[in-house]
Amino acid sequence: MGRNGLTLAEMKRTLDKYGTGAGGTRNIAGHNRHAIRLESELATLHKHQAALVFSSCFVANDAVLSLLGQKLKDLVIFSDELNHASMIQGIRNSRAKKHVFKHNDLAHLESLLASYPKNTPKLIAFESVYSMCGSIAPIEKICDLADKYGALTFLDEVHAVGMYGPHGAGVAEHLDFASHLKAGINQPENSQTIMNRIDMITGTLGKAYGTVGGYVTGKASLIDWIRSYAPGFIFTTTLPPAVMAGSTSAIRYQRSTLQDRILQQKNTRYVKNNLNSLGIPVIPNPSHIVPVLVGNAADAKSASDLLLEKHNIYVQAINFPTVPIGQERLRITPTPGHGPELSNQLISALDSVFKELDLQRIDQWAAEGGLCGVGDPEAVPIEHIWTDAQLALKDADLHPNVVDPVIEPIGVSSGVAV
Amino acid sequence: MGRNGLTLAEMKRTLDKYGTGAGGTRNIAGHNRHAIRLESELATLHKHQAALVFSSCFVANDAVLSLLGQKLKDLVIFSDELNHASMIQGIRNSRAKKHVFKHNDLAHLESLLASYPKNTPKLIAFESVYSMCGSIAPIEKICDLADKYGALTFLDEVHAVGMYGPHGAGVAEHLDFASHLKAGINQPENSQTIMNRIDMITGTLGKAYGTVGGYVTGKASLIDWIRSYAPGFIFTTTLPPAVMAGSTSAIRYQRSTLQDRILQQKNTRYVKNNLNSLGIPVIPNPSHIVPVLVGNAADAKSASDLLLEKHNIYVQAINFPTVPIGQERLRITPTPGHGPELSNQLISALDSVFKELDLQRIDQWAAEGGLCGVGDPEAVPIEHIWTDAQLALKDADLHPNVVDPVIEPIGVSSGVAV
Repeated sequence: MGRNGLTLAEMKRTLDKYGTGAGGTRNIAGHNRHAIRLESELATLHKHQAALVFSSCFVANDAVLSLLGQKLKDLVIFSDELNHASMIQGIRNSRAKKHVFKHNDLAHLESLLASYPKNTPKLIAFESVYSMCGSIAPIEKICDLADKYGALTFLDEVHAVGMYGPHGAGVAEHLDFASHLKAGINQPENSQTIMNRIDMITGTLGKAYGTVGGYVTGKASLIDWIRSYAPGFIFTTTLPPAVMAGSTSAIRYQRSTLQDRILQQKNTRYVKNNLNSLGIPVIPNPSHIVPVLVGNAADAKSASDLLLEKHNIYVQAINFPTVPIGQERLRITPTPGHGPELSNQLISALDSVFKELDLQRIDQWAAEGGLCGVGDPEAVPIEHIWTDAQLALKDADLHPNVVDPVIEPIGVSSGVAV
Repeated sequence: MGRNGLTLAEMKRTLDKYGTGAGGTRNIAGHNRHAIRLESELATLHKHQAALVFSSCFVANDAVLSLLGQKLKDLVIFSDELNHASMIQGIRNSRAKKHVFKHNDLAHLESLLASYPKNTPKLIAFESVYSMCGSIAPIEKICDLADKYGALTFLDEVHAVGMYGPHGAGVAEHLDFASHLKAGINQPENSQTIMNRIDMITGTLGKAYGTVGGYVTGKASLIDWIRSYAPGFIFTTTLPPAVMAGSTSAIRYQRSTLQDRILQQKNTRYVKNNLNSLGIPVIPNPSHIVPVLVGNAADAKSASDLLLEKHNIYVQAINFPTVPIGQERLRITPTPGHGPELSNQLISALDSVFKELDLQRIDQWAAEGGLCGVGDPEAVPIEHIWTDAQLALKDADLHPNVVDPVIEPIGVSSGVAV
């Protein structure tokens, strides 16, 4: 039985036992064993001391960033220019002073950080996988800058949790793959991991984990502080017990197997390689995102419509303001379920649509000097973040202390009567 | 089978057919028949043209109010001093000019409205039932002021939907009870209803409807505008299909029966009357909220602890800053399931706790001149908003066009293929 089957069974079991909803806020009647278990599971996943669950990661980002900016006196926030709308909203609502640094540009970030005294409170807010171009942040080097200039780090792993790392904790875990693989659910010995260097990690339960909700993890004192002050956490109904129990089940399952993550990456490579050999322009990146460059809004919309109407394939066109004008694209995200057979349908459909609409292929972009790394003669080849060696791993290579996907009886794990 | 049984069955059926989560935002892959059906059901409930579902009503209030204040040039917002934290946050984040009027104080509201020219855009933001004191807004008179001074109206019915009105649409529906009872799901003929005079109604799916989520209803053009611009709607994962289908089922069931609403009111009267005859001070109000005045934080906490530890009854103490210092209270909300037997346990437990902690009874408050309407010699008797005649109604008195609670096959109602 796959992840979805386990999660589904857990949700139905919880519905039967605990009903349709939580019935209140976390502070008034809505606190329960499902919330405790889920937060405990999330803290374990990221090897942080504590976690706090919100209605969504939009709410988590908005609530946490606006709280930090409002309460930390003189805080200056440094925000990647491609950060998600939820982070932008949180930073805006914090009314803290902010600087937007060029996407993944360490030199620009450093120049901004260096313009403040070291004792000025600072926060660097960024993502691991950026969803519209598939780029990945230089997390370790950002941590180095944070250390050098005395900044807190806030990392959104929404497009990475469940999909990167030996246990699905995201890119920060992936960057210390061997150590975390060996350590299982424990902290690796005698090593300061990148995941541990990050002060706050936010993530979603609505993408790889397949339910809904968001969270933040960090030091226990910080999480308690957020719990005590964030209106977006305090004054809202708790997620239904079934949603929280299903999420716990999905996280636990993904921690106990590498196979979905490996399959997703293999499927991604298959699609990228085959599109490239047909000259269909994929914006190069190291992640599971496959952005197909179209270059104008009308064609991107037509391509999306044709794919749906003629080929029965739903791919969303991404236009301005989500991407700059002239960089319009189709965004494809292969899942573990999109194996070669389905991918071949997609690839030939895209080829047909590119012919029908006479869209630019790689050589044409190259003739124009390249765009977004497509047909760019100076572009450095980008390596997949999942290495060939990692893709060859088996579940038997996981540390035995990783939790078995069999779901334990509700109420056993937390030890807290609610 | 009761509401919960129907909702539960619908959620499990939807889980089996559509899986654990929506898998995306409303604009990217997360739009589906469950969202369409739920929004159609909500628009029908409030007899507004359209509805939009959010992750929660916290998000709905925050997103809608902040958008209005940001986009409507020169908007001035008039906000009741007891408004919920979500509305306060939305208004704050809108950065619009705002005035806080004294709770339910029409004269104060009018004096503030009158201080602006009629052509200055205005918005009055208020609730129907205020959760901490159980008071109900003078909705009709606020609409009159809105007409007189050219203001939009934004009404939060979070503590009223499912619990007031012949179909559970809230207090605005309740105020035209006979007309809506007769009209069923249609607009009453030849009458402008209070519900229709309100520009925006927000509500929750997490209290009376027993799941999670929030919404706003209003004119179709307004809802489209919010759908197009509110980041809190656009950039977040859709609620799981099972949650939306369960919500639709719960709303539909509550529209088809009066019995839960009537039982809740009868149970409330029973508790209030019996506490009053024991001299236990209930802050007078016309709603289902039973605020028991304690008068200081330490005693309120002790009373809550004693109720739980000694009597196995969970009642939350409400302290500063939620209520002013000196007005600390216990807040009780009887449900349709809290019949005389359970209520008697609560009443005798409260009597015992009041003895044990030597808490002030009504006569002692009266000797001090009264507080919050308790023991106040000048207090006007407050009538329940549910009249005796309304409490005597049977489901056969509902208009036959009210939807039958039997759940129709998914996909039939909306007529929209997704």
